[in-house]
Amino acid sequence: MVTATICTIGDEILIGQIVDTNSSKISTALNSIGVKVVSMVSTSDTEEDIINTVETALKTSNVVVITGGLGPTKDDITKKTLGKLTGATADVENQEQLEIITRILSARGMVPLSALNRAQASVPNSCKVIPNEFGTAPCMEFDIPESRYGHRALMFSLPGVPFEAEAAIPKVLESIQAHFSLDKIFHKTICTFGIPESTLAQQIEEWEDNLPENLHLAYLPNPVLGVRLRLSIYGVDEETGKAELAENEAKLRQMLGDAIYGEGTDSLQKVIGNTLKERGMTVGVAESCTGGFLASLFTSQPGASEYFHGGIISYDNSVKMNVLGVEKEVLDNYGAVSRECAEQMAAGARRVLGTDCAIATTGIAGPDGGTPEKPAGTVWVAVATPEGIESKKFSFNSTRRNINIERFASNALNMLRLQLIKKITL
Amino acid sequence: MVTATICTIGDEILIGQIVDTNSSKISTALNSIGVKVVSMVSTSDTEEDIINTVETALKTSNVVVITGGLGPTKDDITKKTLGKLTGATADVENQEQLEIITRILSARGMVPLSALNRAQASVPNSCKVIPNEFGTAPCMEFDIPESRYGHRALMFSLPGVPFEAEAAIPKVLESIQAHFSLDKIFHKTICTFGIPESTLAQQIEEWEDNLPENLHLAYLPNPVLGVRLRLSIYGVDEETGKAELAENEAKLRQMLGDAIYGEGTDSLQKVIGNTLKERGMTVGVAESCTGGFLASLFTSQPGASEYFHGGIISYDNSVKMNVLGVEKEVLDNYGAVSRECAEQMAAGARRVLGTDCAIATTGIAGPDGGTPEKPAGTVWVAVATPEGIESKKFSFNSTRRNINIERFASNALNMLRLQLIKKITL
Repeated sequence: MVTATICTIGDEILIGQIVDTNSSKISTALNSIGVKVVSMVSTSDTEEDIINTVETALKTSNVVVITGGLGPTKDDITKKTLGKLTGATADVENQEQLEIITRILSARGMVPLSALNRAQASVPNSCKVIPNEFGTAPCMEFDIPESRYGHRALMFSLPGVPFEAEAAIPKVLESIQAHFSLDKIFHKTICTFGIPESTLAQQIEEWEDNLPENLHLAYLPNPVLGVRLRLSIYGVDEETGKAELAENEAKLRQMLGDAIYGEGTDSLQKVIGNTLKERGMTVGVAESCTGGFLASLFTSQPGASEYFHGGIISYDNSVKMNVLGVEKEVLDNYGAVSRECAEQMAAGARRVLGTDCAIATTGIAGPDGGTPEKPAGTVWVAVATPEGIESKKFSFNSTRRNINIERFASNALNMLRLQLIKKITL
Repeated sequence: MVTATICTIGDEILIGQIVDTNSSKISTALNSIGVKVVSMVSTSDTEEDIINTVETALKTSNVVVITGGLGPTKDDITKKTLGKLTGATADVENQEQLEIITRILSARGMVPLSALNRAQASVPNSCKVIPNEFGTAPCMEFDIPESRYGHRALMFSLPGVPFEAEAAIPKVLESIQAHFSLDKIFHKTICTFGIPESTLAQQIEEWEDNLPENLHLAYLPNPVLGVRLRLSIYGVDEETGKAELAENEAKLRQMLGDAIYGEGTDSLQKVIGNTLKERGMTVGVAESCTGGFLASLFTSQPGASEYFHGGIISYDNSVKMNVLGVEKEVLDNYGAVSRECAEQMAAGARRVLGTDCAIATTGIAGPDGGTPEKPAGTVWVAVATPEGIESKKFSFNSTRRNINIERFASNALNMLRLQLIKKITL
């Protein structure tokens, strides 16, 4: 089996200032093509530590993916150090990256290029460049001959900036696939929402216990995406693998029904967006406690303007009354966190925004606020559609503000999704 | 200097299923007492890998903190393996942890304890237990004599569940401080916004080149937080350290002026929120292309309701006209992505939401859309205050939707910040 080590370079990770999210993304990608990640290491950006870490990785792995330490400033020495390690005899300026740097910095009015910025296009002559379209530091690939560590190795150096690193991943995978003969792994991810992980595990226990040896199930819980179930099958040909995945997917669908909202990289907002587009319907939001986060989930989706018309963030009660038309009596008698308020917000959003559907949220995100009856973590969600308004209270009993906001918004999306499935069959 | 390695054990990190957030928290804590983290490593939960990883760590570090692999199931073998590594001769049942386990599982109706759960209270007799109040797996501390690796070492094993690991940190620090005589490290982070990393580096180059040997500078760029500059000083007493950091901070402030918006864990939204609270002012937003993300930055801040009244997400032009009062002629003659539209949106938001200030964004987030004159990555931002309206175009020339949204929103926040500094001195 082809093995990999992922190295991150930089004091900002070692002192705890930054959480390393690159390694997890790279690892997921490597796994998807059948490369087994055996270790992840973070090290500081001194020459000695970089060389020690990378050499150890090269001795034990076929593939080494390094992120970080490629900035234009003096504390970033990864490029120079990897050049030294791989016996580079000179630096060469990469024309393609130079053009990208010029384009990016022109757009920011930073031409002619400074010496520091131009130097970003220079790489050791021991590497092949993978152009970085989104940043100034090129990605580098080093092909290391078998004679050096007893096995052929590929080493990649990617920027530390997460979206720049992520953008390079497809090229990294392509190159690994061209250099090594890989075992096949086939994956299928089924996305569920609304059933807690432990309950889900009980519901599918018998099926899970009887899975064949070469079929592996992983639970991937996430506050926004729900619990995703990833099935992986090893050591079979494509036809058998796909057939077996399809058979087990069908069983899961039978057991879990509407709790399954999609597959692969689907999200609630993507699936809802597709349904709305298909039906020529529009949606809007009225947000109190989620404060724009629900709208931002919709608008994170390219092309959202086809169905998402807008939203009213009615954080202050004056906005609930003046813009959404929530009655003062409702706020006085039931409070802002109530079924009555949520329903008037949803109806108001539908009217003001001129949409077919609207979702409203009103709750207590925390960490402070709340009462014994309505503690932090409580939210009322209302969904208004041409068929009427439905509302529901969710209680998460948590004072973690950002997690609460994520849970409130994703459960609100899921309510709309279920309404679209069950109620509206245009 | 006392050094540390942090090890995480478990396939869920290596396959990318989970992002490791424990290491970052543990590292921050170790740094705060002057322990230098020299490496972080993730390894799989086989006996061979655990022993290799931990022994390597013990050879190079005085302190090794391990998280994960302490669950009740068969695949969790950390406890047994660490017992073997440290020459344990038997297991002993820890009474304090047994009581905690009984209490936790009683609350879930899981008494009498199963053999698996009771076994959680047993530990190798080579360790000292740090009770885990929030979970069933006890934390363990192993004191390793100098004779073994040529230096005295302390090894801790903590659960992988983030809040359980976090709860054990104070006890871990206490024990390290009791065992070692520690050097001090002092950090100071200065937050800047609006100057690209490479330009910033040029502006402070001379100062940076003349920093003393024991003072280290790191650049931490982030699309939402801007470029943060972290100064670290080693090997001095507290008074000298703090004085030297303060002196260099003063120099930075002189060089960078208003580009500095805060320090430590500050964010633009936090700093703006504090300014608004101090002045008794309120703010609202009118968002087109940022689609709720700008509002969600404001509302991610606890207590935002004191100054953030709400927002209008006018994704569709009908909402721009009907709710914000943008004139049809403006949309027809200049388009939605124009100075004129942004200014009418900001004025409309201020009026409709009844706030002192309002920020409006209208642009093209991409990946599609845009024209040669207004490509994806273009945004007009307007800021309305009691002093009038200011507007500005930003061009990022990028088709990366989510990054564009982040940049649009953070630059919009920064415009309001600068207005609050420069124009409004109530």
